[in-house]
Amino acid sequence: MQGPQACVFCRVVAGELPSYKVYEDDWVLAMLDIRPVGRGHTLVVPKQHFEDVLDIEEDLMLHIYRVAKKVAEAQKRALNPAGIGIAQNNGAAAGQIIFHFHAHVIPKESVNQNRYEPSPEELTEVAELIRKNLVT
Amino acid sequence: MQGPQACVFCRVVAGELPSYKVYEDDWVLAMLDIRPVGRGHTLVVPKQHFEDVLDIEEDLMLHIYRVAKKVAEAQKRALNPAGIGIAQNNGAAAGQIIFHFHAHVIPKESVNQNRYEPSPEELTEVAELIRKNLVT
Repeated sequence: MQGPQACVFCRVVAGELPSYKVYEDDWVLAMLDIRPVGRGHTLVVPKQHFEDVLDIEEDLMLHIYRVAKKVAEAQKRALNPAGIGIAQNNGAAAGQIIFHFHAHVIPKESVNQNRYEPSPEELTEVAELIRKNLVT
Repeated sequence: MQGPQACVFCRVVAGELPSYKVYEDDWVLAMLDIRPVGRGHTLVVPKQHFEDVLDIEEDLMLHIYRVAKKVAEAQKRALNPAGIGIAQNNGAAAGQIIFHFHAHVIPKESVNQNRYEPSPEELTEVAELIRKNLVT
């Protein structure tokens, strides 16, 4: 487990680390996963540090899912994937890697996709595509 | 794709098929998955038929996630799993099997769990455990 000081997402929110932003408001940041399971794989992250679903305030979690739906709609318009997975992992046993609550919104062409490493140019392009198609 | 008439979840909501209920209100039904990935694996299902995240009304989806959080908290109290996965699949390519929107709330002990088939007695027992620990 990580405290807020060492937390990668807290550092992204603070502007100490770069990210491929898709959406931002006062409460959340949506950005590309840099090792996506599918092209356009987006993470919706609260700006305040909460570890997981047991820890986070209800209203903030609901806002994250409100934004996740907007991201899914934008992915559909921008990329037209065959499917979209929305997932939120709590605890290492459930696949959580960064212990700062986040929802994954993952464009899928098949159920058996693996993570890959797109170039910075590809990430920049897909972030812009989703951003331009996101209607709030 | 299935229309509401043939939809398994619509038939459960209508009382035409049985289920292991964990929670119910005017808008949603939470019940055990009968082929769970983890003990206590629960599905939160809207009573009205919507196919997926692109189709469902925002307020109803948010209520489903409000209930999913309560179910996760109840699973933690009742079963104390190492982790909890919350997942919502849209389209066969994303693993959706029943084309009526639903959120999975899955107690996990490891990331590599497979579906299994508990006895009716086990399902009855775990549904009651979660129900008794659910605080709304």
